[in-house]
Amino acid sequence: MSQTPDSVVRTYIEQHRAAFLDDLAEWLRIPSVSAQPDHALDVRRSADWLAAKLKETGFPTAEVWQTPGAPAVFAEWPCDDPQAPTVLVYGHHDVQPAAREDGWDSEPFEPVVRENRLYARGAADDKGQVFFHTLGVRAHLAATGRTTPAVHLKLLIEGEEESGSPHFRALVEQHAERLAADTVIVSDTGMWSEDTPTVCTGMRGLAECEIRLHGPDQDIHSGSFGGAVPNPATAAARLVAALHDEHARVAIPGFYDGVVELTDRERELFAELPFDERQWLRAAKSHATQGEAGYTTLERVWARPTAEVNGIGGGYQGPGSKTIVPSSAMVKLSFRLVAGQDPALVEKAVRAWAEQQVPAGIRCEITFSGATRPCLTPLDHPALQSVARAMGRAFGKPVRFTREGGSGPAADLQDVLGAPVLFLGISVPSDGWHAPNEKVELDLLLKGVETTAYLWGDLAEHWRHVP
Amino acid sequence: MSQTPDSVVRTYIEQHRAAFLDDLAEWLRIPSVSAQPDHALDVRRSADWLAAKLKETGFPTAEVWQTPGAPAVFAEWPCDDPQAPTVLVYGHHDVQPAAREDGWDSEPFEPVVRENRLYARGAADDKGQVFFHTLGVRAHLAATGRTTPAVHLKLLIEGEEESGSPHFRALVEQHAERLAADTVIVSDTGMWSEDTPTVCTGMRGLAECEIRLHGPDQDIHSGSFGGAVPNPATAAARLVAALHDEHARVAIPGFYDGVVELTDRERELFAELPFDERQWLRAAKSHATQGEAGYTTLERVWARPTAEVNGIGGGYQGPGSKTIVPSSAMVKLSFRLVAGQDPALVEKAVRAWAEQQVPAGIRCEITFSGATRPCLTPLDHPALQSVARAMGRAFGKPVRFTREGGSGPAADLQDVLGAPVLFLGISVPSDGWHAPNEKVELDLLLKGVETTAYLWGDLAEHWRHVP
Repeated sequence: MSQTPDSVVRTYIEQHRAAFLDDLAEWLRIPSVSAQPDHALDVRRSADWLAAKLKETGFPTAEVWQTPGAPAVFAEWPCDDPQAPTVLVYGHHDVQPAAREDGWDSEPFEPVVRENRLYARGAADDKGQVFFHTLGVRAHLAATGRTTPAVHLKLLIEGEEESGSPHFRALVEQHAERLAADTVIVSDTGMWSEDTPTVCTGMRGLAECEIRLHGPDQDIHSGSFGGAVPNPATAAARLVAALHDEHARVAIPGFYDGVVELTDRERELFAELPFDERQWLRAAKSHATQGEAGYTTLERVWARPTAEVNGIGGGYQGPGSKTIVPSSAMVKLSFRLVAGQDPALVEKAVRAWAEQQVPAGIRCEITFSGATRPCLTPLDHPALQSVARAMGRAFGKPVRFTREGGSGPAADLQDVLGAPVLFLGISVPSDGWHAPNEKVELDLLLKGVETTAYLWGDLAEHWRHVP
Repeated sequence: MSQTPDSVVRTYIEQHRAAFLDDLAEWLRIPSVSAQPDHALDVRRSADWLAAKLKETGFPTAEVWQTPGAPAVFAEWPCDDPQAPTVLVYGHHDVQPAAREDGWDSEPFEPVVRENRLYARGAADDKGQVFFHTLGVRAHLAATGRTTPAVHLKLLIEGEEESGSPHFRALVEQHAERLAADTVIVSDTGMWSEDTPTVCTGMRGLAECEIRLHGPDQDIHSGSFGGAVPNPATAAARLVAALHDEHARVAIPGFYDGVVELTDRERELFAELPFDERQWLRAAKSHATQGEAGYTTLERVWARPTAEVNGIGGGYQGPGSKTIVPSSAMVKLSFRLVAGQDPALVEKAVRAWAEQQVPAGIRCEITFSGATRPCLTPLDHPALQSVARAMGRAFGKPVRFTREGGSGPAADLQDVLGAPVLFLGISVPSDGWHAPNEKVELDLLLKGVETTAYLWGDLAEHWRHVP
C-alpha cells in the first residue's frame, strides 16, 4: 500500500516535530519587544536568528532589512516554473512586552510545554505562526519530491508590528519590486475555535480623528454666564449624539457611499458559525449587544462600518464639582471601514458634517491621523479557495469563512502591491495575545505546518500567475 | 438755613472718612485667606479685629462664633422701639488667596490708594462692603439724634465664604433664635455700573450632580467589538445632548414645574438697563450668545433655570489615538434654579430622566451633591422699596433692579430664618473679585456708607415688625 501525499506530509512533520519545536523555543527565548528601547538589540538578534534559520530551511535569499526603527526579515525561494504564482507571506518577529509579575505562571521568555500547549510570549503572536512556514515548505518539498516550492515564495517578517508599524509602509514602498506578488498571505491571525477551522477573508479599515471644540477663552462662571453662551462640552456631546441615527446607522452624509454590502452567501456562511452570544459578550466584557439595525453581531463587527467614540473630555473632571462653562472639549472618534470605503473620502465627509453641526460661537478643530484601508478578498477568489482546501485537508473538516473587525498593516501590502490579501492563522481566542500566559496549541501549530505543506501545490495547480 | 438730614449724613461721613479708611486698611492688612491652612490664625485675627471694631462702633454685643472651621462674627444693636423691624446683615471677613506674583501691581495685603481707588485683596469682596455698615450706622445716629438704630440691627459676618461656606448652614441653624430677623440684607454683591446704581432682588439656586455610566468591565478593542456593544461615552454624550430641546429649553420632564415666571414689570425693568451685548460677551470671554428661546441674555442668566455641563470625560484623552470602546464615562451637570423650584424635586426629575435615557447594557450611577435654594424678593416688598429709596438718595438718581445668576449661602439664611433676602452692594464689575489688583471705588464705598445711613430710618418708617 503506497503512501498518500497527505500521509507523507504527516510522517515528515512527525519526524521533524521535535527539532522544529526546539528551534521555535530558541527563537522565543529572544525577548524581541519592539516597544521597549532596552530590547532594541534583542529585536535585532531576533531578525538575525530568523534570517539564518530561513537560509538553513533552504531559502536561497534571506536578508535583514533595516528601517529607521526595528529591522524586518525578507526571504525568497523562487519556483523553477516561472509561470507559477508568487505568494508573499506576512508576519512579524517582534512581541508584546511581558514580565513574570504581570501574572505569568512561568517565565514569559522561557518557553515551556504544559498539556500539549507551548507557553511563551510570542508563541501565537506571531513567532509560532511565522515559524510553521519553515517546516511547512520542507514538508511540501518532501511530499512532492520538488527541489523548489510550487510557487514563488516570499516572506516579509516585520519587527515593529507591536509598536504600530511606523515604518512599514515606507519599507514596502521602498522594496515594492522585490515584494511584488500575486497574493499576500497574512500569517498573523486566528481561527474561530479549536473545532472550527476558518479562513479570514478581510479586515476593516480605520480612520481616526480628534475634534477639539473651543468656546469661551477660559473656563467661565456658570452662574454668571451659564444658559446664555454656547458650551463646548454640550457641543461635543451633541456631535457624538448626532453620529448615529435611531437605527444605530452612522448619520454622517456620504459615510456609506461605496460600501460593499454582504452577499447572501456570506451572510449564510457567517450564520453557520457556532456563535454563542453569551460567550461573545463575556469576551467583550459587555452587558448587552447593540448596533446597526438589520445586522447580526458578527456582521456588525466584521462587515459593517462603524463610528465609535474612543475618548471624550472637557471641563472639570476631578472630585466634587466646579460650576463652570468649560473653555473647550474634545472627542476622539474612530471609524472602522469596509471594502468600498476610501479613508480620504470618509475624512472629507466627517469634516463637512462636523463643521455643520457646530453652533455659532464654538470653533471646531479637526485632526485626522493615519488611516488604514479595508481589505476584502471575494469568496470565489482562487487563492482563497486554495487556502480553504489546504486547511480542510489538514484539519479533516470543512473550513468556514470569517472576517476580522480590526485593522492592520497588511492593508498597506494590498495597497502598495495591488495584491489581494488572505489571512491564514491557527491561533484560537484562548491563546491570550498581549496577555499573560500566551500560548499556542501544539496540535494546531502542526496543523498550520500541514496546511502550508498542502497550500503551495494547490495554489500552483489552480491558479496561474497573471502578469 | 438749617441742614437737611442728607447734608448732615454727608458732613458726618466726610468728617470721619479718613479714620474709616485707616481702619479698613488695618483690617485689609490681615490676610484672612480661609482656603489656606497656614492663614488660619489670620482668619481668627480678622474675626477678633472685627468684633472689637464693632464694639467700638457701639454694638452692645459683638461675639466671635466658633465653627469647626473658621470663626464668624455676630453683632447686635437692638432698637429702643421693640416694634421696630429686625434686619440681619450678612457678609464675610475671609478673602480669596492672593500673591504679588499673580500679577498684582502692589502687595495684595498692603492697601494703597491710587486714583481714588483702594487696592487690596478684600477691598470689595467683602471687607469694604462689610465695613461701610460701621460708619453707616454712626452717620444714621448722628443725623437722627438717636442713641440706638431705628431697626434692630444684627450682623453675621462669616469666615468661610471663599471656601464654600462648609459650616455656614449648621451655624445658622445652631443660632437660629439669635439670628431671627424680618429681613436679611446681603452685603456681598455688586451693582450694574458706576453710573447705574441697582439693587439685586434674587439669586438663582443650584443643584449639582455627577452621572457615571458603566459599559464594558474594562476598555475593549474597538476593532473586535466596536459597533456591536453600547459605548458608555456615546451614552454620556446622548444624555447631555438630550438635556435641551431645539429651543434650548431644558427637556427634563418636570424641570420647570413651579417656576416663577418673570412679570411684565420685571422684564421692563431689565430692559431699561444699559445692556451692551458686545461688552457682556467680552466679560463672558465668549463668542456668541445662545440660550432659551423667548428670553434676553439678562433674563437667561438672572431669571431662567438652566442645565449646564461642567465636565465630561471618558475613554482615552491623551495624545494620539487608542482604538477602544471605553469602560466608563462621566458627566458633571449643574442646574441653576429660580424661585419656585425645589432642589429635591429637581433631583428626582433628573434621576428619573437620566435612568430612562440610558440604554441596555449601560449601568448608570447618579450622585447629587449639596444643593442651594433660589431666593427672590418681590419688587413690591416694603424692605426692597426702602433699600431702593435709600440708595437713590445716596446716589442722587433712580435705582434699578437686577438679579444674580450665581448662587450663595444667603439662601441658607432665607431657608432657616424664613426671612426675605435683599442684596445691597456697591461693587462694580471692574473691581476684580478673586483676581489680581482687586479694588474698591472710594466714591462708591462712601455711597454705601451713605445708603445704610438712610436705610434704617426708612425701613423703620415704612415697615413694622410682623411677628
